[in-house]
Amino acid sequence: MLQPPPAAPGMREDAIDTPALLLDLDAFEHNLDTMAAHIAGSGAKLRAHAKTHKSPVIAARQMARGAIGQCVQKVAEAEILAWGGVPDILVSNEVVGRQKLARLAALSGIARVAVCADDAAQVAMLAEAAEAAGQRLSVLVEIDVGAGRCGVAPGPDAVALAQRIAASPHLRFGGLQAYHGSAQHLRRPDQRQAAIAAAAEGARRTVEQLRQVGLDCPIVGGAGTGTFALEAASGVYTELQAGSYCFMDADYARNLDAAGQPVATFRHALFVLAGVMSAARPGIAVLDAGHKAVPTDSGPPLVWQRPDLTYVSASDEHGTLACASETAAPKPGEKLRLVPGHCDPTVDRYDWYVGLRRGVVECLWPVAARGAMT
Amino acid sequence: MLQPPPAAPGMREDAIDTPALLLDLDAFEHNLDTMAAHIAGSGAKLRAHAKTHKSPVIAARQMARGAIGQCVQKVAEAEILAWGGVPDILVSNEVVGRQKLARLAALSGIARVAVCADDAAQVAMLAEAAEAAGQRLSVLVEIDVGAGRCGVAPGPDAVALAQRIAASPHLRFGGLQAYHGSAQHLRRPDQRQAAIAAAAEGARRTVEQLRQVGLDCPIVGGAGTGTFALEAASGVYTELQAGSYCFMDADYARNLDAAGQPVATFRHALFVLAGVMSAARPGIAVLDAGHKAVPTDSGPPLVWQRPDLTYVSASDEHGTLACASETAAPKPGEKLRLVPGHCDPTVDRYDWYVGLRRGVVECLWPVAARGAMT
Repeated sequence: MLQPPPAAPGMREDAIDTPALLLDLDAFEHNLDTMAAHIAGSGAKLRAHAKTHKSPVIAARQMARGAIGQCVQKVAEAEILAWGGVPDILVSNEVVGRQKLARLAALSGIARVAVCADDAAQVAMLAEAAEAAGQRLSVLVEIDVGAGRCGVAPGPDAVALAQRIAASPHLRFGGLQAYHGSAQHLRRPDQRQAAIAAAAEGARRTVEQLRQVGLDCPIVGGAGTGTFALEAASGVYTELQAGSYCFMDADYARNLDAAGQPVATFRHALFVLAGVMSAARPGIAVLDAGHKAVPTDSGPPLVWQRPDLTYVSASDEHGTLACASETAAPKPGEKLRLVPGHCDPTVDRYDWYVGLRRGVVECLWPVAARGAMT
Repeated sequence: MLQPPPAAPGMREDAIDTPALLLDLDAFEHNLDTMAAHIAGSGAKLRAHAKTHKSPVIAARQMARGAIGQCVQKVAEAEILAWGGVPDILVSNEVVGRQKLARLAALSGIARVAVCADDAAQVAMLAEAAEAAGQRLSVLVEIDVGAGRCGVAPGPDAVALAQRIAASPHLRFGGLQAYHGSAQHLRRPDQRQAAIAAAAEGARRTVEQLRQVGLDCPIVGGAGTGTFALEAASGVYTELQAGSYCFMDADYARNLDAAGQPVATFRHALFVLAGVMSAARPGIAVLDAGHKAVPTDSGPPLVWQRPDLTYVSASDEHGTLACASETAAPKPGEKLRLVPGHCDPTVDRYDWYVGLRRGVVECLWPVAARGAMT
């Protein structure tokens, strides 16, 4: 259900109710500009991933800086973006189920919509849904370039599936989905380079084999915040699907550059503002933000600009901080910014972004696709 | 934002869109009846914890079977329950912050509301908010009986804080909060018995010391699904705060009885219905329910009545199943029930309970306090 916003425009940060999802607008805009500058001239375009932000408002800002469209994972996310004005959407995985396919086909009447497949049965179901809706759906073949999750093997299996798509009067072969998710989080640059070199080689070989059977490959999509520069430079990928770059999180901040230093391309723009609810024991403070407020699937949050404080454990609604020095322990009522371990599931816990500029609330943007799972 | 429901009354289970939060109504009612029977005559009453279910509809069913009220963790949860008709609510932890305290004090004009404190500064803030609202707030002293999180030490510290509460014309000393959360998940019954014996002893000693200074202790609250029978039998605890018992989850199902067998007091009533979206690799199936749909903070979900399938990894929107035998691997479009690892955060991901009886949708109950974090 929709929660009331925890702040109002003009309010100062220390008056915002907790927990709240804060967006530092200067850092956010810096990240959008930085991504646009990084990939300019690379031959690849940004199709930013909306599973991170779940907001047509943010999508519009990405597209104003050159993003050609958006990726989503769910039909319900695609609907909310399309209805919010996004004209070009890729569902970057497989979609199965009668209701979902009917909704997807209907949506392709009001926006460019593409979806992925890795199985002949899915292709048949997509064709049936498209025919019933009187639409023609664009379908990409997902190839497994190292993630070991969805996708057919690069090469002949992918070509056979592409031919099956191209043979349907209700479908259009849209290209290849070649995303290597786990490569994003390999910490050393040589590890990331090796993983993406292998992924790009699988994609390149498949594109070539498709060409040999007369199939053009309009899109080769993949890449995320941890590796996008590698895919952009590959000469194979045409679309980059980074999502987290606009917010950053504690997990991505652990990726290292060639000098062994954290990659600092993007700034932390997303925070959870939490309040201290208890400090009854020396050296410990308890926050009103547990794992319902700041999911810990990619590790605990960091406490922003407070290296003396460590978020050591999360229960449903309590977050326990260990304090390096008893004298520095925060008191009940103090508010602290947390840098989420993983931005995507954190955003999905909130109904509102509280947009801040230099400490003052400027806007409240709805997390319009919050909970959009079907 | 509010999502449309994934089902309609009268629909059969295999037609429900995925992912969906299913409630098996027969198992749910069995659990409510079982709890009522277990504690009848124990001297302790059930004040069921709504952080699990977040629903005035479920609260009403618990109270129809003898629960004397509800616990919550958040003021926003208390509001939704009180506005939905629950007359007696305990916020079972500390609440700090000007807005929250003003809301809490206002709420105590329409329902019996109590809250916890473990610090003199909180008591002062509570008194100020109660005075401003022209209300008198009931405040329990939280004592740390082993959880090592919030709470003052049992004994003199607790007595001093209780006296401070009792001395305020705007507050009323409500009793002791003596919850031992981590004891719920100790797997062996002797471990749970030892932990709760120590907790009850701390509470008993504090009650006695309060009596010596002339303070009566109307409530001694604590207990959860893993240990409630121990607190009920202690002769000290007057209110039991179990929440998960009405749903059960995979984590609580790992608790053992004296014979080394899983405690089977309650049945699994809560499920996430998930769909297979991809099965491109032998022995692997990928579900449309990742950790956004079924949080893994207490371990992965189990696949209901399918011991041949293991949920081995969760990413944002993908759940990967390993199949014991290739011939048994589920196909795209198949739907499977998952037993969540942890029911509380799972419920909080959904806007709707899909209530099922013998395979047919009977009702759609809103998760009215979904996302109520402030």
